[in-house]
Amino acid sequence: MMSGGLRIEPVPGVGEVRAGDDLAGLLGAAIPGPLGPGDVLVVAQKIVSKAEGRAVRLAGVSVTAEAAALAARIGKDPRLVQLILSESTAIVRTAPNLLIVRHRLGLVMANAGVDQSNLPGEDDRALLLPVDPDASAARLAAGLAARFGGAPAVVISDSFGRPWRMGTVNMAIGAAGLPSLIDLRGQPDRDGRILRASVVAFADAIAAAAGLVMGEAAEGIPAAIVRGLTWTAPDTDATALVRPLDQDLFQ
Amino acid sequence: MMSGGLRIEPVPGVGEVRAGDDLAGLLGAAIPGPLGPGDVLVVAQKIVSKAEGRAVRLAGVSVTAEAAALAARIGKDPRLVQLILSESTAIVRTAPNLLIVRHRLGLVMANAGVDQSNLPGEDDRALLLPVDPDASAARLAAGLAARFGGAPAVVISDSFGRPWRMGTVNMAIGAAGLPSLIDLRGQPDRDGRILRASVVAFADAIAAAAGLVMGEAAEGIPAAIVRGLTWTAPDTDATALVRPLDQDLFQ
Repeated sequence: MMSGGLRIEPVPGVGEVRAGDDLAGLLGAAIPGPLGPGDVLVVAQKIVSKAEGRAVRLAGVSVTAEAAALAARIGKDPRLVQLILSESTAIVRTAPNLLIVRHRLGLVMANAGVDQSNLPGEDDRALLLPVDPDASAARLAAGLAARFGGAPAVVISDSFGRPWRMGTVNMAIGAAGLPSLIDLRGQPDRDGRILRASVVAFADAIAAAAGLVMGEAAEGIPAAIVRGLTWTAPDTDATALVRPLDQDLFQ
Repeated sequence: MMSGGLRIEPVPGVGEVRAGDDLAGLLGAAIPGPLGPGDVLVVAQKIVSKAEGRAVRLAGVSVTAEAAALAARIGKDPRLVQLILSESTAIVRTAPNLLIVRHRLGLVMANAGVDQSNLPGEDDRALLLPVDPDASAARLAAGLAARFGGAPAVVISDSFGRPWRMGTVNMAIGAAGLPSLIDLRGQPDRDGRILRASVVAFADAIAAAAGLVMGEAAEGIPAAIVRGLTWTAPDTDATALVRPLDQDLFQ
């Protein structure tokens, strides 16, 4: 993961993405210049979910008694709480207007990643995470390979809160064509000592870096390219970044 | 925080840093080109701690009964456990060879950031975090301003594990000359909806991005420059990134 220097370029001009759109085609047309080895396309989860038709009408949601009770207790829309619970395997913490769950993908996050912003004119709809973000990343990478050749690397990012830190950072929920996690254990440090515990969340750092040019506000850019990375570790999906439940000290 | 594109440059050639060294002078000489507006120098905590004389000889550590008992229980060097406890206000979780604490700075982290790697030929020494990393960052920024003019921005970074994620990412433990946290609440999203919960951990994302060229292994680079950022929010120290204890759901 050493490098002589990186360049992070926003990918504007993708336009509004709709269910069924060819996202690789839209992104491929918007990318300034081809994707070479060491270049990673980072794509916001929102446009992946939109293209995959993961928007759900709240009016069509049947609310269980459990969801209704929880919604009343924390002060959230019961239909939204129902969607969040349907996407989750466990409730981790609750607080007023806050619901932290373990998403079925293993991700511990607020609201199971269910989002109501950025759906134009649709106050009645919420957007779920992609069904399988690693598969989404692999499909995007294949689509980009068909356009640009080579073996493009793709990260799908979403913003996460952190338990002991204020503010959000982007992390990787899907990845293809790069090592999401790099294990440096056993390599010497600069003084020849063997590093004992250095496993680097490579795809998370790439997602956070790309977030610096993507933003969330009015000018929000749905994708960015990180150029100039090098790596030798084998490819691993973003699921490698999910800490297994039996190692979770904060359930 | 929008940007037309960023460049991340490693700062090699700083050499071994010793207690009392003029770190701003060493870094200023190593930086390729001046620091302009929107450029942020990210410095690894290790060299800041070294320059500030935060290395401690284990042989000189007096171990309390509490530290000895904890060390025996989790299988760690009792002197190291003593140092960790001395740097902390609370033990958050323990597991075999793992001690997660709340550092006196409020940071929840493994081993209170106490590090035994990268101290040349000194198996007997451990390195503590700077006493006040925000003040360290401000001193570095002042030293760089004296050399380059302007008002350089500095982030001091350290690697952190995360409770539900594998691998480490770099985060900001000190900052000067930039907003560590940017509050976008109240700004419209791309479709004109008001964002309800978008507070961005700007300095953490910058630290993570810089980590992509700094690394931890043999070729470890102790600093990097992120060039091309823009921001309008007021400057805030990295302490703004520490979630207050009364909002901590995972004590």
